[in-house]
Amino acid sequence: MGFSSLLERRWETSQSLLCVGLDPDTSRFPKSYSTDAEGIEWFLTDIVDATAEYACAFKPQIAYFAAVGAEQQLEKVCAYIRDNYPDIPIILDAKRGDIGDTARMYAREAFDRYGAHAVTVNPYMGTDTIEPYLTHPQGAAVVLCRTSNAGSGDFQSQVIDGEPLYVHVAQRATTQWAQMGDVSLVVGATYPEELATVRSIVGDMALLVPGVGAQGGDPEVVVRNGCNARGTGVIVNSSRAILYAEGGIAGAAQEAQRTRDALNAAR
Amino acid sequence: MGFSSLLERRWETSQSLLCVGLDPDTSRFPKSYSTDAEGIEWFLTDIVDATAEYACAFKPQIAYFAAVGAEQQLEKVCAYIRDNYPDIPIILDAKRGDIGDTARMYAREAFDRYGAHAVTVNPYMGTDTIEPYLTHPQGAAVVLCRTSNAGSGDFQSQVIDGEPLYVHVAQRATTQWAQMGDVSLVVGATYPEELATVRSIVGDMALLVPGVGAQGGDPEVVVRNGCNARGTGVIVNSSRAILYAEGGIAGAAQEAQRTRDALNAAR
Repeated sequence: MGFSSLLERRWETSQSLLCVGLDPDTSRFPKSYSTDAEGIEWFLTDIVDATAEYACAFKPQIAYFAAVGAEQQLEKVCAYIRDNYPDIPIILDAKRGDIGDTARMYAREAFDRYGAHAVTVNPYMGTDTIEPYLTHPQGAAVVLCRTSNAGSGDFQSQVIDGEPLYVHVAQRATTQWAQMGDVSLVVGATYPEELATVRSIVGDMALLVPGVGAQGGDPEVVVRNGCNARGTGVIVNSSRAILYAEGGIAGAAQEAQRTRDALNAAR
Repeated sequence: MGFSSLLERRWETSQSLLCVGLDPDTSRFPKSYSTDAEGIEWFLTDIVDATAEYACAFKPQIAYFAAVGAEQQLEKVCAYIRDNYPDIPIILDAKRGDIGDTARMYAREAFDRYGAHAVTVNPYMGTDTIEPYLTHPQGAAVVLCRTSNAGSGDFQSQVIDGEPLYVHVAQRATTQWAQMGDVSLVVGATYPEELATVRSIVGDMALLVPGVGAQGGDPEVVVRNGCNARGTGVIVNSSRAILYAEGGIAGAAQEAQRTRDALNAAR
């Protein structure tokens, strides 16, 4: 089952719009975990077990593994999720972007090596650099549109033919990339008006919405501006606020439940 | 010594503008090499030894290692270059792009783990996502401006305030990012007019120019349109045409020499 189908089913069965981001910063681990590569695996499998019932998706951020040479642990955590929670989609957050031959290597990395259901992709290099993720048999792309960081307007908000660049990305996703394969978009919770604009362009397309939690986005506004006509359509990510909540793993579970409930209260 | 200083000195001592791209596709290896991770290391160290005298830089493309779980071999190849050819800068081609905390993890990956002198970075997410590479003590960023692929115009050529997006990237690199640290730009050999435009904006700034070799860019035009007033300023990359030349490793050395000479003939 492909990413979008799995996600649709998971939204239904979990009654959750929350994505738990897996950003293993060993300097913030509870004291009971070692800060080596093995500690990353143990901490994250405990986080997965504690938060799975509140999650519509998991999103490992590959940079945290790559910085410390923990690719094998990322493989194991992805395999653990697939084996134990086969109904929860895995989005590999890697923000890849490169020309065709190289993009095919990145698609192999995301889908064949890590077994992710979708990978985040940067659109700057153009359609031919997104296509390899869409045409991979197990592939799906979540393309950056309007990102949650403070400087995202430097280029994304610049106006081309009367519309900002991120609107052009949303239009291409709807009219062109969706014909090629399974595509969704990233729009930050920190830009709620832009989230509403993108929703008005893309129909029911799934939107990955980072920026709730540590980055300060408001769950109620995200649901109001981001959900589609069916009351789903958003994958609202929180990483640090859940992983490093007071009270260790039990605190992470509570924070995941609290965030899921805050999102559901606004539906 | 930082990336730009090392590069300036290497241009002078090697009398070469050629960057040898290290894209290990095991399906194209000469028959004497195994196609596992160890084969990647042996093939690339032989390529490095055979082509170093013709090279102003080496550029490993991380996707080819990541697809097959060969990160340790990338570490070893980078260490081999630093140990045996300490005067040749290493550009890690990874096209990273992510928000601050995550970008700092990618900077650790590139500079601390792999010991690269510079890393390629995607500008779509804005200045605050480029800054962590520029402020890392051993860091330098080579930012995508106008890429060599066929679809690069989808967004990069779109006009904002009378100028295409890639011109805005070049202007920001010159006026803002260069004040933050060691920055250069990627401009494809397959768009020679755009290469001349970028050169006219950025002064003597180094430009990484992919697309000569298998992608068909013309070395003479690259030199004419891309070099700065000192007759340097370009890092002209060829990967597949060198690595998989007829005649195995000896053929790769000949192709590197031939490409260096073709570039020098046009200076």
